[in-house]
Amino acid sequence: MSDENLGSVQYGRPSQVPFGSLTGGAPQQHQVRHRQLNNPSGTAASAAAAAGVPAASSSRPRATSDYGSIRASALHQARLRIESDVDCVSYAPDVTVEGTERQRLVDNSGEWYFESQHAVSGEELLSAKFESLDYDTCENSLWAAEDQSRTVWDLRRIELCRWLVHLLIGVVTGAIAFFIDVCIEQLAKVKYRYMKSMLDRCIFHDCLIYALLLWIAFNFIFVLIASCLTVFGEPVAAGSGIPQIKCFLNGIQVPRVVRLRTLVCKVLGVLFSVVGGLAVGKEGPMIHSGSVVGAGLSQGRAASFKFDLGIFEYFRTDAEKRDFVSGGAAAGVAAAFGAPVGGVLFALEEGASFWNQGLTWRIFFSSMTSSFTLAFLLGFYRGIPNDLSNPGLISFGKFDKLDYDLLHLAIFACMGVVGGLSGALFNTLNEHLTKFRHRYVTSKLGQLTEAVLVASITAVTSFVLIYTVRSCQPLGSDQMEYPVQMYCPDGKFSSMAALLFQTPEAAVRSLLHDPVGTYSVTGLIAFCLPYLLIATWTYGVMVPSGLFIPSLLIGAAWGRGVGIGLNLLFPTHFTDPGKFALIGAAAQLGGIVRMTISLSVILIEATGNVLFGLPIMVVLMVAKWVGDYFGTGIYDMHIELASVPLLPWEPPSRSAAVSAQAVMSSPVTCLYRQERVSRIVEILRAEPHNGFPVVSGDLGPGTFGTFEGLVTRNQLICLLDMRLFDDGDPNFHLENPVSLSDFRRVYPRFPSVRQLQLSEADLMKSVDLGRYMNPAPYMVLHTCSLARIFRLVRGLGLRHLVVIDHRNQVVGMVTRKDLARFRATHTGDLKELQFTG
Amino acid sequence: MSDENLGSVQYGRPSQVPFGSLTGGAPQQHQVRHRQLNNPSGTAASAAAAAGVPAASSSRPRATSDYGSIRASALHQARLRIESDVDCVSYAPDVTVEGTERQRLVDNSGEWYFESQHAVSGEELLSAKFESLDYDTCENSLWAAEDQSRTVWDLRRIELCRWLVHLLIGVVTGAIAFFIDVCIEQLAKVKYRYMKSMLDRCIFHDCLIYALLLWIAFNFIFVLIASCLTVFGEPVAAGSGIPQIKCFLNGIQVPRVVRLRTLVCKVLGVLFSVVGGLAVGKEGPMIHSGSVVGAGLSQGRAASFKFDLGIFEYFRTDAEKRDFVSGGAAAGVAAAFGAPVGGVLFALEEGASFWNQGLTWRIFFSSMTSSFTLAFLLGFYRGIPNDLSNPGLISFGKFDKLDYDLLHLAIFACMGVVGGLSGALFNTLNEHLTKFRHRYVTSKLGQLTEAVLVASITAVTSFVLIYTVRSCQPLGSDQMEYPVQMYCPDGKFSSMAALLFQTPEAAVRSLLHDPVGTYSVTGLIAFCLPYLLIATWTYGVMVPSGLFIPSLLIGAAWGRGVGIGLNLLFPTHFTDPGKFALIGAAAQLGGIVRMTISLSVILIEATGNVLFGLPIMVVLMVAKWVGDYFGTGIYDMHIELASVPLLPWEPPSRSAAVSAQAVMSSPVTCLYRQERVSRIVEILRAEPHNGFPVVSGDLGPGTFGTFEGLVTRNQLICLLDMRLFDDGDPNFHLENPVSLSDFRRVYPRFPSVRQLQLSEADLMKSVDLGRYMNPAPYMVLHTCSLARIFRLVRGLGLRHLVVIDHRNQVVGMVTRKDLARFRATHTGDLKELQFTG
Repeated sequence: MSDENLGSVQYGRPSQVPFGSLTGGAPQQHQVRHRQLNNPSGTAASAAAAAGVPAASSSRPRATSDYGSIRASALHQARLRIESDVDCVSYAPDVTVEGTERQRLVDNSGEWYFESQHAVSGEELLSAKFESLDYDTCENSLWAAEDQSRTVWDLRRIELCRWLVHLLIGVVTGAIAFFIDVCIEQLAKVKYRYMKSMLDRCIFHDCLIYALLLWIAFNFIFVLIASCLTVFGEPVAAGSGIPQIKCFLNGIQVPRVVRLRTLVCKVLGVLFSVVGGLAVGKEGPMIHSGSVVGAGLSQGRAASFKFDLGIFEYFRTDAEKRDFVSGGAAAGVAAAFGAPVGGVLFALEEGASFWNQGLTWRIFFSSMTSSFTLAFLLGFYRGIPNDLSNPGLISFGKFDKLDYDLLHLAIFACMGVVGGLSGALFNTLNEHLTKFRHRYVTSKLGQLTEAVLVASITAVTSFVLIYTVRSCQPLGSDQMEYPVQMYCPDGKFSSMAALLFQTPEAAVRSLLHDPVGTYSVTGLIAFCLPYLLIATWTYGVMVPSGLFIPSLLIGAAWGRGVGIGLNLLFPTHFTDPGKFALIGAAAQLGGIVRMTISLSVILIEATGNVLFGLPIMVVLMVAKWVGDYFGTGIYDMHIELASVPLLPWEPPSRSAAVSAQAVMSSPVTCLYRQERVSRIVEILRAEPHNGFPVVSGDLGPGTFGTFEGLVTRNQLICLLDMRLFDDGDPNFHLENPVSLSDFRRVYPRFPSVRQLQLSEADLMKSVDLGRYMNPAPYMVLHTCSLARIFRLVRGLGLRHLVVIDHRNQVVGMVTRKDLARFRATHTGDLKELQFTG
Repeated sequence: MSDENLGSVQYGRPSQVPFGSLTGGAPQQHQVRHRQLNNPSGTAASAAAAAGVPAASSSRPRATSDYGSIRASALHQARLRIESDVDCVSYAPDVTVEGTERQRLVDNSGEWYFESQHAVSGEELLSAKFESLDYDTCENSLWAAEDQSRTVWDLRRIELCRWLVHLLIGVVTGAIAFFIDVCIEQLAKVKYRYMKSMLDRCIFHDCLIYALLLWIAFNFIFVLIASCLTVFGEPVAAGSGIPQIKCFLNGIQVPRVVRLRTLVCKVLGVLFSVVGGLAVGKEGPMIHSGSVVGAGLSQGRAASFKFDLGIFEYFRTDAEKRDFVSGGAAAGVAAAFGAPVGGVLFALEEGASFWNQGLTWRIFFSSMTSSFTLAFLLGFYRGIPNDLSNPGLISFGKFDKLDYDLLHLAIFACMGVVGGLSGALFNTLNEHLTKFRHRYVTSKLGQLTEAVLVASITAVTSFVLIYTVRSCQPLGSDQMEYPVQMYCPDGKFSSMAALLFQTPEAAVRSLLHDPVGTYSVTGLIAFCLPYLLIATWTYGVMVPSGLFIPSLLIGAAWGRGVGIGLNLLFPTHFTDPGKFALIGAAAQLGGIVRMTISLSVILIEATGNVLFGLPIMVVLMVAKWVGDYFGTGIYDMHIELASVPLLPWEPPSRSAAVSAQAVMSSPVTCLYRQERVSRIVEILRAEPHNGFPVVSGDLGPGTFGTFEGLVTRNQLICLLDMRLFDDGDPNFHLENPVSLSDFRRVYPRFPSVRQLQLSEADLMKSVDLGRYMNPAPYMVLHTCSLARIFRLVRGLGLRHLVVIDHRNQVVGMVTRKDLARFRATHTGDLKELQFTG
């Protein structure tokens, strides 16, 4: 900035400025345009006092004595203008806009006002808890300087670090999966062996009630541990974590979702909830765990433990972190299902919006490494070290022969319809339960009680099932580890007990691969219905709980039932019920979660059979179409219930006539290039917003200052924290060089404005925002349609989009919340087509 | 527009306009800012005469008499300004720009000038042949009206049509694949049966030379047919078509690439080139064929045959067409390799930039349908109807057992290195050959001669190989259809002849699955080297030719050689050479084409083995890394050689300090909202550009008119063709309603401006561009960095990006060619990192 501006920071200015002063080459004077919406007294001094900072006027006589009266009148005018903003968007009536264009603006203003009235509640609803992430790069002068200072070798080093981090993500995620696998196996072995011997003894001694009590006790204790870890340890570790990761990748900062503490609680919690006999799987939590690993390793530190390696500092931005979280999620899927390609597709289908080839390769690398690590460790554990092709990778056992014809395909499609219906039922029940839970089960004690209640009821139901459904099958070439005889004759065992005396994952394997005749149709139906209800209840209880395995189990049960039934009707056909179990499993899972591509690939990889891909795809498609008729998938449903401003893939239909003005937030608080510290502090305290446009030029009726750039709250806080107060001194930045590293160091936990320790003298100084602002953020004209804005924000992962008028003056801002809010208030009229989901 | 403006189209205006006239609510006057760079006389009249339209001044006395003198001086000023543009970007020296900002602009101007000097040759080089596609929606008032008029049922119908078209794409692509498969099978049967009997006879009668001549004759005739189809039928059908489709999906209009004529020539051509014994496969051409099917079916017409169904009219935009072409490409891969998931990933890895969940599902649906159709038809053809799980889907035979350990993995990685090196060699040789061919083999006769020469030499080489390499193997449980005895004792056959007496695809299958001991190391090496050279030569010859199969064959040969060699060294280990053949095939193909994810999945699906996925991925990654060290993949290499302005995935490294001003084209020809027909015609004739910003307000030194919107050449031509001349009459549009359909009807073959039949009276009328322009196209500030511009253009598939200054005045335009050109002129300094490819 030129020297003449030193210290001439002003708080207002007459609105009528001769045109010549802008074009005549005179040095610009910089003002603050400060919106005192909550300060009806209308003077800057009282505003400053109200906001808790010393009033500028009292401590800086020169500024006030020079411009005091002008300031007061300018502020008064500004207030008037702000109020008129609300009435007519952004064009004060005395501004000339061309013919038709103006007509349209005036026509729209009424509607906009209506919008803004509705918006208040929507905003509060949506913004209470969730901040947005910013996946855009702030391309300020520091960034340019850093970019210029890099050699080709620096770039190579960063690239190498990226690959290295992805490698580490794969290794660590694979190791975690191994840890969970082995712990569950060992704990389940203890539990079921003890239970079996108890049951076997009690059948003869008529002490079945003690066996039941023992079972309840086992479940109670394990689930209590899991629930304590979640409720007292980290509540965000509850559930599968997939909705949270989906939100994170979409650009929403779900608090504490990728912290180390969350990881620990999730991993230990899922162990105990699976062993506790709940209708849950470890797959969803594995995906969440992988994501935390990705976020943690890429930052090279763990804030929960005040531990900082100081490496990978370059990756401390939202955009870089997102990439590693995608890699972690993919690695999680790869480890959970032995499906590396499925992992990549999961990360893409559920998360990423901008497809980047290089990133996808790295995600793929994480997935591969994770699969490899798990296979390698499992090989050692199972005593066949060095054999990487062991079936550890294949979660659901390998099918040797799966043939099908057109008739099969037709039946499978019908099963897809059943899966869609049953999935919709599951989701609807779960939705009501979740609403109930949000309202009534809010205390920690209540949550713990619910968890152990579910655990006990699961045990009781299982026991009743085993006791009542007396389907006996001969002991044969089956896979049961603990065949329970119950009331069956010698040499036979209770197939129901076999199904319930193992973890749900093992039960799925049994249903897919047990020989013909192991289960009866009645037994499967008797198992299926209560299990569906229990699983519905379980998803949402305060324990880490995956949804994939219970869904697959329910589906496999009724699918196998269908297969057996068909075989009874046509004894020469349909001899392989396992095939139908697989299709049923796919149908049920597809009906609940509504994924198609990644789920197809996951199932293909998890069963090791490529040939059966086509029927699986058909079933998933049908299940999705049918289910979408009744509502969204379960993850989206939970995201909606949590009022998260998730942006869908496509802009709302028929949004062409909705313009930026109807969507944007207005008025916007703007800053000047050379800005006084006390003003910045005041604004940061008074305003919840994150992005502030930087403007120059004139204020007054109908003029909003020329848009120059955008500065974010975090940048401002860093500036203040580092005391980069130059007071217009051109040599200041030479003497106090800062780099982007200084900003990244505090990422992502920037101090709040109230934590800043600024002296009175500091507050009187000024900052040159020009160096730190983004000089060319994305922006649109106010005539832009909602569809276009949506595509821009969604496609590039923006947090702020500045709306300008035809004079390049800031008239509004569009953020993720504006888009989400707009959608929320328009559900009737502009609701999205559910046909494609 | 207001009535006062009727007929007051002016060609200039005093540059000093009082500020009040803009803000005082007076009706705006509209001018044309016309750049007469090639017209040094400086008057509008002579300019119009030079451009071949009647001069406005002579036929419209009112306009000239009123404004004549003013116009002349304004034009003179404009000319001065234009010249100063070239010197100092966009800011005339008398415009005040703020302190540092101005400094930067002035500093940059020298560099920009340097750029613009370089740019001329780059532009000519890049733009000679290729137009860009526009994947953005023009959101004008017609679009808004159409959008508003749609009911929910219309939206559902469009969505249903989308799925229907994707279904049809799958069915037709599958049927084409079936046709090619069966024809090749039948023709090859005739050829090789005849050859075998000839050879068997000639061994005894010593007439081998006649057998050779017969072989040459076969190859000569088949390849001559294929080459004639390409050279005289449709030259763009040559090669694999994958580079062309990659360009299309990237946003480049490769002429005639998705026409029906191309499809016919490609399909018939590839038949004959495969049967003609060339080292080619049908896979690449299948992908191209699928893409043509996608483009054709979605438009509901075939322009080559003047055939229009009139359906799917809504899909006649670049963006919609692109989606269907993606679906077609995926369906092609699915049919070619029996790899539906691989198809989806191929479409994404090679083509799409913006990942859209709904689109991906539809692409997946096309892939599935295509696989299904092919399996269904092949089932019928092979006499096992109704069995969809027959191995027709699996192209390379099914592996039953593929185990591996760490040692294997290490060996595979080394093979990946070999594949990368060998692929780089292949690409380098092919690059030199292609350059040679571009220079010397340009006549049709030359191209035909080269094709038949390659065919003959292939036959001779094969014959010499069979004759000299006398590795005899016992007739056993092999898969050879035509075992040739040659000089082998009875009960044995020549393994070399077996390899060469089938199509390359069948040969790959043999190398993967033939029992241990079928081939010798020396035989494989003797086969491998000449085949590599021939394949290098073949790719680029004017016949449809896929590269996948020859690459896989070369790799499988040396891979099997490695396996046999290892087994000789360690007789108890490495007993399965087929495993090594598969890895070698993957390594070689990965080294040549440098795809990883889609190729992994394609190979996994084509061999039906999920467990072997990890080694394949490792090998492909290693081969890619090694190969990338020496240069790009073969498709990218061919795209570069063709000077296509392909945009890579990432912006150039270290481009932070490069601003929009250095990249943009300037000056830009702008139009006014109410524009005279003669002006439009003149501009369209004189300028090659496609997008014209619409501006309002003042012209003069340092003022460029306020940016209002963007209108494209095609829109202008349609407007003129439909004679939508309103002359400012507000009732005109009520009396002459047009809709977007009228514009889509002529898509994509808009008439040229010279084909328009406009009368003298027409030329005097004026058009309201406000209705047709895009009122809020994407735009950036002139301070925007190259990286940001790149991400915007690449991410959203834009054709034009308007650059504005801080007053919202148009200072430049950035198009794909500007970005590509910028990259081309900066290869030394800003070359992209090749580490990630």
